Amino acid sequence: MRRAGSIRMAVYTEVADEELEAFVASYDIGAVLSFKGIAEGVENSNYLLHTGAGYFILTLYEKRVNEADLPFFLGLLEHLSAHGVTCPQPVKNSRGQALGRLADRPAVIVTFLDGLSARRPDARHCGMVGEALGNLHKAGAGYGATRENTLSFRGWLPLFRSAEARADEVLPGLAVTIAEEIASLYQIWPKDLPAGIIHADLFPDNVFFLAGKLSGLIDFYFACTDFLAYDVAICLNAWCFEPDASFNITKGMALINGYERVRRLGDAETAALPVLARGAALRFLLTRLVDWLNKPEGALVKPKDPLEYLKKLRFHQQADSARDYGLLR
Amino acid sequence: MRRAGSIRMAVYTEVADEELEAFVASYDIGAVLSFKGIAEGVENSNYLLHTGAGYFILTLYEKRVNEADLPFFLGLLEHLSAHGVTCPQPVKNSRGQALGRLADRPAVIVTFLDGLSARRPDARHCGMVGEALGNLHKAGAGYGATRENTLSFRGWLPLFRSAEARADEVLPGLAVTIAEEIASLYQIWPKDLPAGIIHADLFPDNVFFLAGKLSGLIDFYFACTDFLAYDVAICLNAWCFEPDASFNITKGMALINGYERVRRLGDAETAALPVLARGAALRFLLTRLVDWLNKPEGALVKPKDPLEYLKKLRFHQQADSARDYGLLR
Repeated sequence: MRRAGSIRMAVYTEVADEELEAFVASYDIGAVLSFKGIAEGVENSNYLLHTGAGYFILTLYEKRVNEADLPFFLGLLEHLSAHGVTCPQPVKNSRGQALGRLADRPAVIVTFLDGLSARRPDARHCGMVGEALGNLHKAGAGYGATRENTLSFRGWLPLFRSAEARADEVLPGLAVTIAEEIASLYQIWPKDLPAGIIHADLFPDNVFFLAGKLSGLIDFYFACTDFLAYDVAICLNAWCFEPDASFNITKGMALINGYERVRRLGDAETAALPVLARGAALRFLLTRLVDWLNKPEGALVKPKDPLEYLKKLRFHQQADSARDYGLLR
Repeated sequence: MRRAGSIRMAVYTEVADEELEAFVASYDIGAVLSFKGIAEGVENSNYLLHTGAGYFILTLYEKRVNEADLPFFLGLLEHLSAHGVTCPQPVKNSRGQALGRLADRPAVIVTFLDGLSARRPDARHCGMVGEALGNLHKAGAGYGATRENTLSFRGWLPLFRSAEARADEVLPGLAVTIAEEIASLYQIWPKDLPAGIIHADLFPDNVFFLAGKLSGLIDFYFACTDFLAYDVAICLNAWCFEPDASFNITKGMALINGYERVRRLGDAETAALPVLARGAALRFLLTRLVDWLNKPEGALVKPKDPLEYLKKLRFHQQADSARDYGLLR
């Protein structure tokens, strides 16, 4: 028997060979030698593509990614890469376009990035992630385009409305807890912190390491324009809690220190950190709750547990200041 | 919305980085650069492994594969490769062993094989597959080990018993149809045809093509010792029917001609072909029926349709001779 928790799943669109070959022929990367679905990014179909020119990732964009946003994402990858952030590079076809169409879906070929995700991140990983996040924010500064963060602040209430009626199936009282938290955050959410390009989903799955160093960032499909410190708060949620939901302040300190080696947090950002961390926990609680309630009955793999983020939210609700996250000033 | 039929799914065991790195360090293939689950072979977990020495496939053996059979399969890959069949080659660790252990499962690293599966095989593909099957049978002749075919003849009744009570959920009358077919085949199943190593699962997913030529065979985990002509019958089932379940005799002729370019079928084999084809159709009808009845309720992806093989079985039941498959003598 397989053990619960030991399984990942991925879903792929079938692509006909003729279609694939015609698509790849529109690029200057040689003929297709191999094409295999890979388990990366749960929102899209990703394939390893081997051609005469080397190894690439081909992505077919499925639900949740708005096609109109793709030029923003692809331009961002190019901009970040040109400014020192190691991330997948869109390959342009012979007409100079990065965005194509395959199997009735928007499709992109990007460069293959080596590296492994940290399955059990330690404080050293957290320090490197903080620094990479700072570099990303700095590199993103010159990117001309903007994109609203549809999963922050204004997005929470619609998300909650779609899950409210059945939220208590997951935990009795959960609907009221979330409603109260949204009401509180609507009062205290910051209005004028430094903003710019944020990754918005920099979880361990999306960060590669190689030989003890951070080697690249992937999956920019939640990237948007929002408070830079909110991205720090997302990373504190994603990287610095232990499996028992306790916050590891050594990891928090490493992450914030890493970030501040590149970009120092201002006083307003520091003061807002506990509120931003609450908002970040609420965002993942809500999206996981929606996924949980919409999971196919008896599906092979359970969606991620929304209650993990309820526990994190409770930690943030009792935090007094950025000191509780390891910022010692 | 995703369209039904356009989706493939794969499931992977999670492997901890430390474990993976220690495992790969026991081979002489450099350090791990990348490791991604790939969609290949529904029975096992397969990963693309990039190391300093190149690209490999790492397989973790899950349910259905009997660990005691692994030396047979791995030895067969080496033997076939040494005798001109292009198939994945097991990589040996520094102690000279091909079979290792990772994440509590038997694990093997094999060479990466380029090529694409034919999603809509035509008569040319069938000709090449027939020839490759002949070569496989010829190359397998010198392989010392044997393995009983647990999914032939003696295996059908136990398989049927596990599905009998609920078979009519799939189609009213199916249980009786299968019981009668098993009873018939027990009377007429051949006893003394030429036997040897057969692939036993040479479906389009398991055959790679490149630049219009067959470039390799994969997935030998049903390989066993059985009638060679039974393997031809499996391929006729797998390659030569149209989506509407009609038999395409042009494809059948191409497949048999391709096979006979390497190994001519004897008179007894020719005479037995309709019966062997019935047995092959029954085997896939039974395993698909068991999978169908045991599918998780509401799972994202439906198991393959068992009734496809009931239709094929009915074709074989009315076949008079090998002439109905395109063997014109």
